[in-house]
Amino acid sequence: MPRTRSALPATGPVRLGPDSRAALRPAAAGIDTGFWQARRASNAHVSIPQGPALLEAAGNLHNLRLAAGTAAGEFQGAYPFVDTDVYKWLEAAAWQLAQAPDGAQVPDGAQVPDGAQAPDGAQAPHGAQAPDRDQVPGDVQAPDGAQAPHGAQAPVRDPAPNQDAAPNQAPAPDADLAAEVGRIVDLVAGAQQPDGYLNTWFQLVKGGERYKDLRWGHELYCAGHLIQAAVAHHRATGSGELLDVARKFADHIDSVFGPPGSGRPIDGIDGHPEVETALVELYRETGERRYLDLATYFVDRYGHGLLGGEAYCQDRVPLREATNVEGHAVRQLYLLAAAADLATETGDAELRTAAERLWHAMTTTKTHLTGGLGAHHEEEDFGDPYELPNERAYCETCAAIASIQWSWRMALLTGEARYSDLIERTLFNGFLAGVSLDGERWLYVNPLQVRDGHTDPGGDQSARRTRWFRCACCPPNVMRLLASLEHYLASSDDNGLQIHQYVSGRYASDLAVVRSETDYPWHGTIALTVEETPAEPWTLSLRIPQWCRDFRVRCGQETYEGPVTDGWLRLERTWSPGDQVVLELSLEPRLTAADPRVDAVRGCVAIERGPLVYCLEGVDHPGGGLDDIVIDATRPLAVKHRPDLLGGVTTVVAAGSRRHLPDAGWWPYAPVDESPASPQQDGEAVELTAVPYYAWANREDGSMRVWLPTS
Amino acid sequence: MPRTRSALPATGPVRLGPDSRAALRPAAAGIDTGFWQARRASNAHVSIPQGPALLEAAGNLHNLRLAAGTAAGEFQGAYPFVDTDVYKWLEAAAWQLAQAPDGAQVPDGAQVPDGAQAPDGAQAPHGAQAPDRDQVPGDVQAPDGAQAPHGAQAPVRDPAPNQDAAPNQAPAPDADLAAEVGRIVDLVAGAQQPDGYLNTWFQLVKGGERYKDLRWGHELYCAGHLIQAAVAHHRATGSGELLDVARKFADHIDSVFGPPGSGRPIDGIDGHPEVETALVELYRETGERRYLDLATYFVDRYGHGLLGGEAYCQDRVPLREATNVEGHAVRQLYLLAAAADLATETGDAELRTAAERLWHAMTTTKTHLTGGLGAHHEEEDFGDPYELPNERAYCETCAAIASIQWSWRMALLTGEARYSDLIERTLFNGFLAGVSLDGERWLYVNPLQVRDGHTDPGGDQSARRTRWFRCACCPPNVMRLLASLEHYLASSDDNGLQIHQYVSGRYASDLAVVRSETDYPWHGTIALTVEETPAEPWTLSLRIPQWCRDFRVRCGQETYEGPVTDGWLRLERTWSPGDQVVLELSLEPRLTAADPRVDAVRGCVAIERGPLVYCLEGVDHPGGGLDDIVIDATRPLAVKHRPDLLGGVTTVVAAGSRRHLPDAGWWPYAPVDESPASPQQDGEAVELTAVPYYAWANREDGSMRVWLPTS
Repeated sequence: MPRTRSALPATGPVRLGPDSRAALRPAAAGIDTGFWQARRASNAHVSIPQGPALLEAAGNLHNLRLAAGTAAGEFQGAYPFVDTDVYKWLEAAAWQLAQAPDGAQVPDGAQVPDGAQAPDGAQAPHGAQAPDRDQVPGDVQAPDGAQAPHGAQAPVRDPAPNQDAAPNQAPAPDADLAAEVGRIVDLVAGAQQPDGYLNTWFQLVKGGERYKDLRWGHELYCAGHLIQAAVAHHRATGSGELLDVARKFADHIDSVFGPPGSGRPIDGIDGHPEVETALVELYRETGERRYLDLATYFVDRYGHGLLGGEAYCQDRVPLREATNVEGHAVRQLYLLAAAADLATETGDAELRTAAERLWHAMTTTKTHLTGGLGAHHEEEDFGDPYELPNERAYCETCAAIASIQWSWRMALLTGEARYSDLIERTLFNGFLAGVSLDGERWLYVNPLQVRDGHTDPGGDQSARRTRWFRCACCPPNVMRLLASLEHYLASSDDNGLQIHQYVSGRYASDLAVVRSETDYPWHGTIALTVEETPAEPWTLSLRIPQWCRDFRVRCGQETYEGPVTDGWLRLERTWSPGDQVVLELSLEPRLTAADPRVDAVRGCVAIERGPLVYCLEGVDHPGGGLDDIVIDATRPLAVKHRPDLLGGVTTVVAAGSRRHLPDAGWWPYAPVDESPASPQQDGEAVELTAVPYYAWANREDGSMRVWLPTS
Repeated sequence: MPRTRSALPATGPVRLGPDSRAALRPAAAGIDTGFWQARRASNAHVSIPQGPALLEAAGNLHNLRLAAGTAAGEFQGAYPFVDTDVYKWLEAAAWQLAQAPDGAQVPDGAQVPDGAQAPDGAQAPHGAQAPDRDQVPGDVQAPDGAQAPHGAQAPVRDPAPNQDAAPNQAPAPDADLAAEVGRIVDLVAGAQQPDGYLNTWFQLVKGGERYKDLRWGHELYCAGHLIQAAVAHHRATGSGELLDVARKFADHIDSVFGPPGSGRPIDGIDGHPEVETALVELYRETGERRYLDLATYFVDRYGHGLLGGEAYCQDRVPLREATNVEGHAVRQLYLLAAAADLATETGDAELRTAAERLWHAMTTTKTHLTGGLGAHHEEEDFGDPYELPNERAYCETCAAIASIQWSWRMALLTGEARYSDLIERTLFNGFLAGVSLDGERWLYVNPLQVRDGHTDPGGDQSARRTRWFRCACCPPNVMRLLASLEHYLASSDDNGLQIHQYVSGRYASDLAVVRSETDYPWHGTIALTVEETPAEPWTLSLRIPQWCRDFRVRCGQETYEGPVTDGWLRLERTWSPGDQVVLELSLEPRLTAADPRVDAVRGCVAIERGPLVYCLEGVDHPGGGLDDIVIDATRPLAVKHRPDLLGGVTTVVAAGSRRHLPDAGWWPYAPVDESPASPQQDGEAVELTAVPYYAWANREDGSMRVWLPTS
């Protein structure tokens, strides 16, 4: 079939190699209004622009200058992986440079798909003034210049050539941002050693010692983030400067690491997988097969005791034999993303089967309702099957991001929509909670409950949003995902276009361009218009979300309510420009219960609506704590749009009561027949106002809970 | 009233000072048969004798020789507080030296109080062969000589003079043990620096640096354990050798630490409270008031930010203002033991009120059913109110011990029985689970659940019993408590004798001696016989346990079922030798529920009988996991004595079922109306066999749970 004028390859992560076995190819997409545009505006105008000043204040850039010999002083930071904060910021900035200017308006003549008014979600967020409470850790002060430009309009941008831009993305990188990127790329290049090695911690603190502490040194982990940044920089700007740095480091690693008999001096792996998936991307970007081979070598050496055999380091059991995810969640998920990459590029069926098996085991037994992953604070560990605590849910923001990365690769590899179901859930909940509405404050851990009387430990694992972290892995990770979000939305195959995530904007396959207008997730109507199409018939595939129990598709005069196969509703026909498809997903709020083996939430329900998990916050329920509240699960839920609240949200209102517990003395356990009377009978009626989980902790500090007891 | 011949002061910890405001005084007691004698036999014949070889293998004794300059080599161990393992072992050994030979028989003519046969609880434990799985950490091998003498009889002991021995305790210290104690005391004395300072880590690893890292250095913590060992050694043996070492160190500390203006160079506290309660004991032992003053100074300096203000170090808020226990559990509890000591010795009413308030807050909101304390692995922290997880219950064995120490001081200070209620619960459950039946293997953490499919991390925080720990604080702490257990059993005041804990043995106040025969906790009958008594009337007070809903006391021709005041049934009369009092506590097994704010156990019940918390172990329920099991709370519980099992236990048998859960696909959450059917309806009936929690993990590795879902 002929390509349309606009059908250009996507700019983002995961550009498949020529021998890929993926069922689907990433398709270009753009977001121009609506829910995600508001979040991306915070990212583009607040989070990313503040990055360099924060990295300067925390010492990351100083370390690069020290390593280059252009500054004097002490290494700053507590970890051997502080360079990755810079690399992740560079990757985010690179994807941002490839963006259309945000705030773009829906073109004239486009119909708002629903009579209801869109909440104010497309505005720069407000109502979340940044308190001065949290200092940047490590005596790092946020410089004045890093203040958030609340509600600032996108600056006028200088257009710049960008061959890879999607059709609806006017190439208009921010000149200031481009200059900052150039400056920091120079810093990185300057810090590199002549043979390609680059890690400021080992160069400055460890006297140049290399690869002696693979378990904790993070040297290859750092290389991985450098490579990813370099690939993004190259794809987004066409510049080879950072890519040259990354290749030189990768070549160095390739000369050092290899199996016994390979002639390379070290048979080893990094305690933190990351370089593997990056090497696959480097292969994709350069066509150099040896990067793929190196990634294969690394992935297969985990689980054989090279690092002492700990689950923490993914070294207890090989992936090919593992029966469930385990150990440090982010380590496990980056490794699995690499496994999916390898299965995609090499056709390794055993690795694919292992990845499918582990994904199923993870979702079935170790995933929180929010998509959050990691049950233990200690060692940031997955925990045991069905061990899914609320107040101690770790659910690191980085784990949510890694999960999205892995699932996207699985979606492309297999073509099954379930992977994008999990991506949607994670994006709207476990991931998005990691950044404040104003883009200035962060959560490293994402609990599902903060108790009345909570004593917060502060620091990185605080349940209160924080300006920056001592271990600042999460903020630039959020930035790079938000800046590249359009690359997780759609795919294509020889038969057509698959829409994985619903946004307001455009999706462009090799064959066609489809425009989308929607107020999703506040409203369930998604209006799709075919803008470009070949003459031949092709299939438009719509993901029907796993949570959705009721939907309808209108396509011209026809209405469909199925069939849904592997999560897809497939519309095959000959399309003409202007053809409309309207998908209506029922957003009836619902009460959700868990598998009974999830002990932590027995006797509880959670409120959900569409892809959003809801929670109660103490601030909305004055007059007592949340831990005394019981929901009446027999009463209907009501929906209330609140444009004034939290940047504009739809709340869910439920009936509940507040228990009156008798004073039971000093011992809180008693024979069953002496237990307190049914709280519904003697409790005080309370109207419960649930807000989307992603928006919690944007007002005053207080209690929060997702799961609500029914009695 | 005249003293009887036998009424001598108790030998153990907490000997009140002359100005004490305590309501009660510790009374002497002895244990000669029954449940606790079996546990103490393991302690006396296995745990304590193995100590020196384990301390040698782990390097603790080597470090002392290094510090003394009598050996060469490197410091061994990972922590600045490894000396305390030696001190706690010395304290345990000292209390052991003050013991009557165990295995003493009930004298002729004594009646077994109950027609039932006593389970084999008084035998050396068996059925718990130590597997070779766990290596002593840190490359420490248990020497052959440390093998447990399973079922070995108490060796013949050389009698030695012991002025403080209780009347029923024939002075018969073990000559071998005495020699070991002497040898190790010499090692400690040899390591002390001329000015009294003693800490091998700082002397050997830190080049003699002192008091520069009070937050983590543990120097005063180590001094505290040295002082406690020295007081025990002095009380038990009359020797002043170790006491001289301790005083010299205490005097050094007193010359260095003090408030601004005191002329002492450092205004500071230790990151780990411990020295405070030890200094009160040193005051009690020596009469030197300045040790009491120093303890007062330290206690009052916590909570003022001297250590940076962290809750972890008890530095966030002063005790006098605190509203709940917080931070590192053992730190908090040792500090509170000291507060109780100070309130006792100085009459500080504000400190007493604070201790009472915090005890109530702790028991009401932060105590596990087992008496275990500490909800977080991370930072060994108390967690938030009602945050009481099962699988991640930390419940450090040392925290249970510290809780007993604090509660005993509160019991003496206030005279209220509730404190001994908590002691009983903790002794039989959260504490005793910390040591294996054979006395050779330990638990540092004491979870209330081990899930099916548990991946154990190994190491100190393993849910599997371990031969020794890298941080070996718990094993010698267990040893010292078991070796001094008789000192937590009874008290006296001017009106008579109070029996706090029921054992087979004797209780001796200043006035009287009472003999006790019982198979408690397997049987609920305690037969008390007055052996010595003055002619004047006095009051025998019996604690009626908080868990007990039905009891009866027969006293001659009379029967009492109350009144119970402050937890006590008080029998005031003129007694004659041979008078019998028979207390019958109903041991009907019961199902217990928790306060509804304890989210972790909503919809669950626990099985209890008398003071014992029960659990299910996977090994008793073949054919499936424990996490699918549901208990039928409507069916009666049955009791089955099992002399063959776990050294002889009474099991509780319940009716339950095993769920058949439909395959719900990859997502374990669903709308309430789609949740799996009631498991009772479609489950397979299963007979549930519950064993006492203290005896868990003495067979094969597997799952365990205390709280059982009812639906």
